[in-house]
Amino acid sequence: MREAASIYCTVVACYLVILLAVLQGLATPESPFPYHIPLDPKGTLELSWNVSYAQEDIHFQLRVHGLRAGVLFGMSDRGELENADLVVLWTDGDTAYFADAWSDQKGQIHLDPQQDYQLLQAQRTPEGLTLLFKRPFGTCDPKDYLIEDDTVHLVYGILEEPFRSLEAINISGLQTGLQRVQLLKPDLPIPAVPSDTRTMEIRAPDVQVPGQETTYWCYVTELPAGFSKHHIVMYEPIVTEGNEALVHHMEVFQCAAAFESIPHFSGPCDSKMKPDRLNFCRHVLAAWALGAKAFYYPEEAGLAFGGPGSSRYLRLEVHYHNPLKLEGRRDSSGIRLHYTASLRRFDAGIMELGLVYTPVMAIPPRESAFVLTGYCTDKCTQLALPPSGVHIFASQLHTHLTGRKVVTVLARDGREREVVNRDNHYSPHFQEIRMLRKLVSVHPGDVLITSCTYNTEDRKLATVGGFGILEEMCVNYVHYYPQTQLELCKSAVDDGFLQKYFHLVNRFNSEDVCTCPQASVPQQFASVPWNSFTRDTLKALYGFAPISMHCNKSSAVRFQGEWNLQPLPEITATLEEPAPQCPPRQSQSPAGPAVVSFGRGRS
Amino acid sequence: MREAASIYCTVVACYLVILLAVLQGLATPESPFPYHIPLDPKGTLELSWNVSYAQEDIHFQLRVHGLRAGVLFGMSDRGELENADLVVLWTDGDTAYFADAWSDQKGQIHLDPQQDYQLLQAQRTPEGLTLLFKRPFGTCDPKDYLIEDDTVHLVYGILEEPFRSLEAINISGLQTGLQRVQLLKPDLPIPAVPSDTRTMEIRAPDVQVPGQETTYWCYVTELPAGFSKHHIVMYEPIVTEGNEALVHHMEVFQCAAAFESIPHFSGPCDSKMKPDRLNFCRHVLAAWALGAKAFYYPEEAGLAFGGPGSSRYLRLEVHYHNPLKLEGRRDSSGIRLHYTASLRRFDAGIMELGLVYTPVMAIPPRESAFVLTGYCTDKCTQLALPPSGVHIFASQLHTHLTGRKVVTVLARDGREREVVNRDNHYSPHFQEIRMLRKLVSVHPGDVLITSCTYNTEDRKLATVGGFGILEEMCVNYVHYYPQTQLELCKSAVDDGFLQKYFHLVNRFNSEDVCTCPQASVPQQFASVPWNSFTRDTLKALYGFAPISMHCNKSSAVRFQGEWNLQPLPEITATLEEPAPQCPPRQSQSPAGPAVVSFGRGRS
Repeated sequence: MREAASIYCTVVACYLVILLAVLQGLATPESPFPYHIPLDPKGTLELSWNVSYAQEDIHFQLRVHGLRAGVLFGMSDRGELENADLVVLWTDGDTAYFADAWSDQKGQIHLDPQQDYQLLQAQRTPEGLTLLFKRPFGTCDPKDYLIEDDTVHLVYGILEEPFRSLEAINISGLQTGLQRVQLLKPDLPIPAVPSDTRTMEIRAPDVQVPGQETTYWCYVTELPAGFSKHHIVMYEPIVTEGNEALVHHMEVFQCAAAFESIPHFSGPCDSKMKPDRLNFCRHVLAAWALGAKAFYYPEEAGLAFGGPGSSRYLRLEVHYHNPLKLEGRRDSSGIRLHYTASLRRFDAGIMELGLVYTPVMAIPPRESAFVLTGYCTDKCTQLALPPSGVHIFASQLHTHLTGRKVVTVLARDGREREVVNRDNHYSPHFQEIRMLRKLVSVHPGDVLITSCTYNTEDRKLATVGGFGILEEMCVNYVHYYPQTQLELCKSAVDDGFLQKYFHLVNRFNSEDVCTCPQASVPQQFASVPWNSFTRDTLKALYGFAPISMHCNKSSAVRFQGEWNLQPLPEITATLEEPAPQCPPRQSQSPAGPAVVSFGRGRS
Repeated sequence: MREAASIYCTVVACYLVILLAVLQGLATPESPFPYHIPLDPKGTLELSWNVSYAQEDIHFQLRVHGLRAGVLFGMSDRGELENADLVVLWTDGDTAYFADAWSDQKGQIHLDPQQDYQLLQAQRTPEGLTLLFKRPFGTCDPKDYLIEDDTVHLVYGILEEPFRSLEAINISGLQTGLQRVQLLKPDLPIPAVPSDTRTMEIRAPDVQVPGQETTYWCYVTELPAGFSKHHIVMYEPIVTEGNEALVHHMEVFQCAAAFESIPHFSGPCDSKMKPDRLNFCRHVLAAWALGAKAFYYPEEAGLAFGGPGSSRYLRLEVHYHNPLKLEGRRDSSGIRLHYTASLRRFDAGIMELGLVYTPVMAIPPRESAFVLTGYCTDKCTQLALPPSGVHIFASQLHTHLTGRKVVTVLARDGREREVVNRDNHYSPHFQEIRMLRKLVSVHPGDVLITSCTYNTEDRKLATVGGFGILEEMCVNYVHYYPQTQLELCKSAVDDGFLQKYFHLVNRFNSEDVCTCPQASVPQQFASVPWNSFTRDTLKALYGFAPISMHCNKSSAVRFQGEWNLQPLPEITATLEEPAPQCPPRQSQSPAGPAVVSFGRGRS
């Protein structure tokens, strides 16, 4: 049996070699694809794409180096290969086929009755095979993924041998993987940059990337002495050639001005050798993640750095994702800041929305989608924002490991008005600053509501809020201008009401939750006997109890006023999640797989 | 302006008269439509239909007596004319059109991009106009109603004048109405009836129907002296000719055997003259509602009546629905029982599932869809059902005024297995005994879960469970065989846990709920300050607290065992509501309105 398969494979391999040899040689025009990422850690599969907002479709170019018998590519809810929306290129030994398909929850592949991925070109180049195909954002086929402007989990699989039919393929036997990316980046015009713009490269020189899956590399550098106030107007990634699949994300932080000096350092962020003071380098200057291009500030604003009252020390953090545990890779990736001394009209600011880092906000264990919500109330925006308001142009969502969705909504006069930023496929492993498609203006009296959805199915105890990686956060860092004194606008449930909750849990259960004053909130949560009542009542508490507001100038200084026992904002009208507009049925697309005839291409 | 319109109308009226006069005269074959109902109280619109389960479509025949300018017909969630799925026959003065359309939430009519109602014939007869059209059960058009086997709210509207276009029509100016019906009746073979079957007509002779919208008429009659045990094998409605739109539903009840005699009576059920003993005539022998045909017992079972231990007295209840408040109508409608002395193998029984009639089960005010659930536990079925189980063949769902949905699901080994009966468009104004499409077998150890969804948006205080019309019930009367001693299998939350709930409400609110022993549960519920916390916590309580079971031989006699503080059945797998299977898009249907050419027909 095994021998027969092996002979069969050899025959097919020959067929492919002959076919592809014949098809080599011709030229393709310069790539019209602005976005580009490697899909797998070896760089065997490379994806480029462009987006047409007018047509509402995406053109994909998939390059496969050293094609064997075929390839799967697609999207799924959270990167699983089951229940995925797929395109499949496969051969039965004689003919190559391309089809829009889907995988069921057992990983079995099926043909989509509606073929929405359209093959435009299949070409053989010296580097490998190139497929060009397009797909609408939404297809109205329930088996298809709806492409939106949030995180998309791309999945792939490599077919090592022919299959007699599409239905014969099951993903369980294949080499597969996932890559996260924002496919629909906003199509904003690129703002002009002042003529006196200079650049500064923040990069760790010659890092020896450790042979382990995950490394956060920390590197400290400093601005020149006497460096005056400048505006960062743009920044872009510098990724060492060949390491495109290794460098997952990078951030540049400014250290706290309180310290005269910060020791230099270049090493893993979790190293025991890392100086403690690096923990005070948390003010984000720039952030890049895989698939992102240059980040431009709006023409009227820049991010201030340098000058008095601002630290000269910067910390670069590079996340190396090395699942193949490659040894001996060297890297000098980093971020190039473009800055100007011709200050723009407005300083840009960063404001933290969401939940205070406190254990009073907790997620019961074994929950698949538990929601916590943090508020920036009308009272705080009334006090802290200028009469003409501020304009949010970018947003970075943040949770720890159990975060699955994050959304911030703006409400005015009790009615939700617009979404500031939403990621229904949020992953804590893929946090990037995203430009908003349009500015969101926040006026005094507006309310900003940030909700995070968590999955704690693999945990046995409650997950409380806090700084630890096993604790949780719910934060949206919004980038806005003009800068104000308001740095934090976050909430948490009132602690007195939480104590009432622990009391009522005691009433309903035989086991006792210690409500004595010396027990800490995490201890109290750890002794709650979780069941549908204690869970649902905690939800009811969070949806009802008054909140304590952090309406702060910096993490320690509150605006003046009474911020405890504040009422929850009353929202009488909520926004509906937009449903795709499905046109009446029309059968324009072919109903079966397309036979692939390969064109020829050069490198 | 008014004059112009009036002239225009006259012209159109002439046009219609001429057109219709020309088209009169030809023959139609005998009606192939088994189901028939008047849509409006005057009988201007008559609907007949048949169902093809093989094709999954319905053929409708709509007769319009004295057509003016057009007619609207369709379906909506609960009988509103807004957000309705409609077919419209209209004229612009020159040409008549037929189109699949929908109304938005302002009542404005729009053309459906997908035309799923297909006009087969338009005919003029001496009585009026007859339209024949068909529609699939499900169309996959989100603007269309999905026809299922539960209650359907049919809606209609009469166009008095021409409209230049479909979009010019708004339902607000029209004479409109609704009619409830089960469109998809099960297509069961008609069981054979024994040759010695005799009939007995239970009808109130010569009732003068009061000139008010709603009358429940009560009439007492008795079985002949010495009437031995018989089986009812079938019953059918007898509706006085001309009163088809007036007689809404009818039920025959047997009185309690405890009374030697029951006084004769014929009058409104709410009359002060009504003898009190009639309140003890509640055992259902037969029930019919508008649109229903004859009810046949399964071949192996019959409903026993007569003989020792069974009351000779029967009560007929007729619901007259008289929205036009017609005076002087006389009626002798009733039910014809078909019964046999050749007893069938099994006596049929009726079992009550759902909630005990007790105020501990309550619905907060201002709720749009609050769910209460009653259980028939494994412990009770284990004790009360025979080893080979029982077979449910029919079901009558029952709530009071705020009920909107009812469903009973059968669970085995902690997993939901099948739906016994579901009505997602339940109306308390339309309760009928429905045959199930297939027998549901219930075995010892099975669990039956009955959930009712209530709308209390127009109430200011909690609605508690109870017998009163302003209190609520959640009941499914299931008809089954072989008969067992189990008459009631219902539950309610444990009262001790409800008292804990009132205590915790006290903790969270400044107002006090009296938890002193002398306060009744309705008084306690009336003093709950309703907010999201008290509502969500009540929900959490009902989803968690142990229950008190009524596992009873009759309403007063329990089976032996401990029935208090029983755990809620644990359900680990729930059934999903079936989603319509939408085929791939195909554009076979016309995209616009169809021009109507009228055929000719005779009476």
